[in-house]
Amino acid sequence: MAQNTVEKTPVTLLGLGAMGTALARTWLAAGHPLTVWNRTPAHTTALGAEGAGAADTAAEAVAANTLVVVCLLDDASVDEVLAGTDLADKDLVNLTTSTPAQARARAEWARERGARYLDGGIMAVPPMIGVPEAGGYVFYSGSPELFERHRQTLGVPLGTTYVGEDAGFAALHDVALLSAMYGMFAGAAHAFALIHKEDIDPAALAPLLADWLVAMAPAVHQTADQLRSGDYTTGVVSNLAMQVAGTPTFLSTAEQQGVSPELLSPYFELMRRRLAEGSGEEDLTGVIDLLVH
Amino acid sequence: MAQNTVEKTPVTLLGLGAMGTALARTWLAAGHPLTVWNRTPAHTTALGAEGAGAADTAAEAVAANTLVVVCLLDDASVDEVLAGTDLADKDLVNLTTSTPAQARARAEWARERGARYLDGGIMAVPPMIGVPEAGGYVFYSGSPELFERHRQTLGVPLGTTYVGEDAGFAALHDVALLSAMYGMFAGAAHAFALIHKEDIDPAALAPLLADWLVAMAPAVHQTADQLRSGDYTTGVVSNLAMQVAGTPTFLSTAEQQGVSPELLSPYFELMRRRLAEGSGEEDLTGVIDLLVH
Repeated sequence: MAQNTVEKTPVTLLGLGAMGTALARTWLAAGHPLTVWNRTPAHTTALGAEGAGAADTAAEAVAANTLVVVCLLDDASVDEVLAGTDLADKDLVNLTTSTPAQARARAEWARERGARYLDGGIMAVPPMIGVPEAGGYVFYSGSPELFERHRQTLGVPLGTTYVGEDAGFAALHDVALLSAMYGMFAGAAHAFALIHKEDIDPAALAPLLADWLVAMAPAVHQTADQLRSGDYTTGVVSNLAMQVAGTPTFLSTAEQQGVSPELLSPYFELMRRRLAEGSGEEDLTGVIDLLVH
Repeated sequence: MAQNTVEKTPVTLLGLGAMGTALARTWLAAGHPLTVWNRTPAHTTALGAEGAGAADTAAEAVAANTLVVVCLLDDASVDEVLAGTDLADKDLVNLTTSTPAQARARAEWARERGARYLDGGIMAVPPMIGVPEAGGYVFYSGSPELFERHRQTLGVPLGTTYVGEDAGFAALHDVALLSAMYGMFAGAAHAFALIHKEDIDPAALAPLLADWLVAMAPAVHQTADQLRSGDYTTGVVSNLAMQVAGTPTFLSTAEQQGVSPELLSPYFELMRRRLAEGSGEEDLTGVIDLLVH
């Protein structure tokens, strides 16, 4: 064990919530020397019993190693926890959920304190940590040198995807993908609501629904191609005019089934607005232009 | 050719829009004797030149064969087109887009005229017709005997999925899956809007987005299990309280990126309402209960 750990990069981890604890355990299991600190000492003690060095203060934990990983509740917690620490010449990796603007400000804040900075956005829930087949990963952005230096260590708990030098890009990718996921969940919620008073087993609908969503997800490639070219009519087989003409069937069905259209109608409303601008021959991509200002 | 077609069920097809024309061509290619009629005679003539029998009237087309497939613009068109036809002892298969209530009424209407009835909801766009690897299919509901009798013929242009004796179920499944798809598209539109003013190639975001949506789509199985059991806390790793706590990051990011939250906020609002009812330990499934009345 001692011989094995000698070559592994030592890690300091601040924050032992469900996510931080899962990260800590995979680094320990992989033989990385680990120093942990948590605001609630009980969590630190528990990890200490599992082989981690339990620091009494955040400053002590930061002082222990060059690589300092932070996984806290929010950006304000990062301020509080790191306030009394010496970050000079540290490799700071911030996995705390934040907005792109918070991440960019944090990168500048770290630079002022003499630290190198990498921001991370975690695309996983704690049970996926250390389970490669679960497919979870972390978006990283910021210092490319820092990412290369610690790529292997950071890759122990979850896969890594580097998305650029702009420190805000990890958070932006994270929020973009999760926003799209909530849209999909909203659509699925509407679908399940439609059958609620029918003699249809939700477990019979689920595989049809999952397969259909999986089959339709690749449509985003066409959307991307259209955004790049600026030509939203490319390859359109069911144009905006035809799709808007179909919306009354969806709204009538919702009404017949006693389901509020509130999760569906905002998108239909944007489709109608785009059509009214004379874009009937387009795909649905023009809706995106109506969202931005 | 003649010998080959002798055993194939003859089909009458009313409606030669993009979808009807694609259906007609696959039946012709598979050697089914085909009689077609369309309101605009030019389409009928074109199919006639390809080997179909071109009927002058809908009544003549209906009289030609027992199996009568209808693929028209909407339910009102079905009324108009079939008004002067004799449907007694016909096998009527209606692929016209309709609501569940329209499909149920149409089944009763057909019964009164002495016809057997099967309703279909097409989960495909015309280029997917006759291309099995494209994965398109048709939901069928209504007479199970009729479905069994014509399963093979109906399976020529697209796969078939029978969802029950209730004639409205095909339309209901169709609308449910397409509604969920629009939700996913709305989420993806928000995601693309978030990067519109950044130096991020939409074509670089697209594969990340598609893979993430594909990975998250199976969550609907857990939703179904929770709806069946009535216990929405089962297997929750990131509960409603935690997810609602995360929503400000999504809304702030949208604001920072100059993106309207209108496609995202209705779902977040329902999450907040469900949380306010004291369901913080649940999954997102409770949102569905708020949609129905």
